[in-house]
Amino acid sequence: MTVLPAFAATQPSPILLRETVDGGVAVLTLNRPAARNSLSLEMIDDLHAALDLIGRDDGVRVVVIAANGPAFCAGHDLKELTAHRNDADRGRASFSRIMTSCSAMMQAIVKLPKPVIAAVQGVATAAGCQLVASCDLAIASEQATFATPGVDIGLFCSTPMVALSRNVPRKHAMQMLLTGEPVDAEEARRIGLINRVVPHGTERAAAVTLAEQIAGKSAHTVKIGKEAFYRQAELNLADAYHYASQVMAENMMAADAEEGIGAFLEKRQPEWKDK
Amino acid sequence: MTVLPAFAATQPSPILLRETVDGGVAVLTLNRPAARNSLSLEMIDDLHAALDLIGRDDGVRVVVIAANGPAFCAGHDLKELTAHRNDADRGRASFSRIMTSCSAMMQAIVKLPKPVIAAVQGVATAAGCQLVASCDLAIASEQATFATPGVDIGLFCSTPMVALSRNVPRKHAMQMLLTGEPVDAEEARRIGLINRVVPHGTERAAAVTLAEQIAGKSAHTVKIGKEAFYRQAELNLADAYHYASQVMAENMMAADAEEGIGAFLEKRQPEWKDK
Amino acid sequence: MTVLPAFAATQPSPILLRETVDGGVAVLTLNRPAARNSLSLEMIDDLHAALDLIGRDDGVRVVVIAANGPAFCAGHDLKELTAHRNDADRGRASFSRIMTSCSAMMQAIVKLPKPVIAAVQGVATAAGCQLVASCDLAIASEQATFATPGVDIGLFCSTPMVALSRNVPRKHAMQMLLTGEPVDAEEARRIGLINRVVPHGTERAAAVTLAEQIAGKSAHTVKIGKEAFYRQAELNLADAYHYASQVMAENMMAADAEEGIGAFLEKRQPEWKDK
Repeated sequence: MTVLPAFAATQPSPILLRETVDGGVAVLTLNRPAARNSLSLEMIDDLHAALDLIGRDDGVRVVVIAANGPAFCAGHDLKELTAHRNDADRGRASFSRIMTSCSAMMQAIVKLPKPVIAAVQGVATAAGCQLVASCDLAIASEQATFATPGVDIGLFCSTPMVALSRNVPRKHAMQMLLTGEPVDAEEARRIGLINRVVPHGTERAAAVTLAEQIAGKSAHTVKIGKEAFYRQAELNLADAYHYASQVMAENMMAADAEEGIGAFLEKRQPEWKDK
Repeated sequence: MTVLPAFAATQPSPILLRETVDGGVAVLTLNRPAARNSLSLEMIDDLHAALDLIGRDDGVRVVVIAANGPAFCAGHDLKELTAHRNDADRGRASFSRIMTSCSAMMQAIVKLPKPVIAAVQGVATAAGCQLVASCDLAIASEQATFATPGVDIGLFCSTPMVALSRNVPRKHAMQMLLTGEPVDAEEARRIGLINRVVPHGTERAAAVTLAEQIAGKSAHTVKIGKEAFYRQAELNLADAYHYASQVMAENMMAADAEEGIGAFLEKRQPEWKDK
Repeated sequence: MTVLPAFAATQPSPILLRETVDGGVAVLTLNRPAARNSLSLEMIDDLHAALDLIGRDDGVRVVVIAANGPAFCAGHDLKELTAHRNDADRGRASFSRIMTSCSAMMQAIVKLPKPVIAAVQGVATAAGCQLVASCDLAIASEQATFATPGVDIGLFCSTPMVALSRNVPRKHAMQMLLTGEPVDAEEARRIGLINRVVPHGTERAAAVTLAEQIAGKSAHTVKIGKEAFYRQAELNLADAYHYASQVMAENMMAADAEEGIGAFLEKRQPEWKDK
């Protein structure tokens, strides 16, 4: 296993580490623990750039997003958010730029043709909670907590709720958003925000194991499926079936489907070829 | 605490009581227990009028809807529904008027720029179950039950299901609608219809406590957030992010965001100013 | 109780049995246990034809879909799927035809003006899991399991996920789709894929009992309600209320609503008349 900054070995401030695990798993680790791994514009840009690189890297099949320190991610960097209050526009342009960049990064997770798994070891709040919700899968320590507490500082978690409300039933999302109170890992699992709760300290290994399991599948098939999942979710039933039927017909033409079905019928392990 | 009819001190039949709790919480109490608090046209109109008044009342920040008597709300008043059966149109016009008024009142809860919390002490059926589902949050007694039993009287709960199916997974909603059978409070919580179950007799106090907690937030921020929640829920992911990013930029320009973030960074309590 | 092939007494291969239970319940039983009840094109066509017949049969009010043998349904017939690999188009036309037929059959369940209940006694995988998800209600044995393992053979369960993702929260659906791993009956209930878990061997009787209960309601009312449920689910809130209000006004004009409400007010059993 190699450990290096996510996308530039010469990067002076390695706030996002990238490790490559054998078998096609990349682990991106938020590494600004003193700032509770807050999503500064630099962190947002680094994450987005790392995802872009991974998207083009055939060697990576699944991504894990983890974090160093006691907090997973405390959301935006409030000092940075308010740094331009004395500008002529009272910071509006700066703030819009941060929001736009952050929303684009979150959508890049959804659009990435490879599954992304959050490994949550601690507090995930505001945009940090959104980061978990935006991942395809999430595993959390029993000590992890999740909150959208923007309401407590006069700044409602409006972008986090886009992701949150697509994971969690309406009344539970509203409770988190209106009270700002945290939910623990078990409750987060119950309401659909995460997939699994594991003993503290094992969440990263559990996420990597899950990633390795998925990395053993046909990358081409996973790519087709992930893209189709989010696209069909926004269609009505008839359109979704029309679209998904076409997707399956295309999928069936791929070498990996031929190989996979053949291997299954012949009771042998498949050898994936497509990228 | 003052207790008075919801919107007219001279109202002869106080079927909807309004109390104001210190700190900006209004409690509306359905007060027609002998009729199981059924949603007569008068009750619908009183509720809608009370919500409209509250919407314009800067002194109210959060609303609790509670009920007197053993039932929370038994849905429409069947005698009233059928009172015009002998009209030339067999009651169609009257019925349409009631349905339109009721649907408008339910949507007024959703559109109200202040959170609405149901405090359910007993049976909530048909439009009564819809009333719970339409609130942003709901707390129920362990003795509360929820049902959409219109199917048993030949009148499917079609408008209640609009609210129900936006709270509850599809198969659970279908079970309630097709069987008409009640679910208990614990099951209602499990499927997402309510947020919390409390000992019988404490549901109103628990709802008021939750309301007071939310009333301590910036009313302006809560207003922005509630409106954005329901609007983004109807957009696709890209549009939802585009919209929510704009909402956050506007929110950031508000005095309460400046105050809230400042207070947080200075480790002091914020003093909200916006309405 | 009579047992006969689903739609042709002379059918040489009774792969789909149809029984009629007193009181208006039809039970369709997948009866190709040696092939794990896989959805061959013949099975798909037989199911679709049986549903069409039932749709026009006033004697049937509710449908149960059950299965013989240890597996409920193992999805598509892989040998059939790949039978045309040596055609000039490498099987694309054949595969598209199967996908289109299967999607049409699944949507016929949703469009059928009568409730459909799955009785799941064993493994339900891929299109078999989709079949369960497509039913209005589902009851499963404690030994039943559910999976979308297409990813393991290079053919992502893209059409199954259309139904699955409309039943189950996003992260749980993704876990099933990306890992291919089964969930047991209790977990399936928890995430919303099925309604109830019963002791093994009683799932069919439990489904028939539930079907009989619903068959005792007004068939006309159930028809109105089921159609409206799926239609309003695809509308925004304002449109859904507008539509559902009209549905209720129409419903109120039906003889069964008049009879049902009258019977309720007179505390007697209703006698349904509408078809």
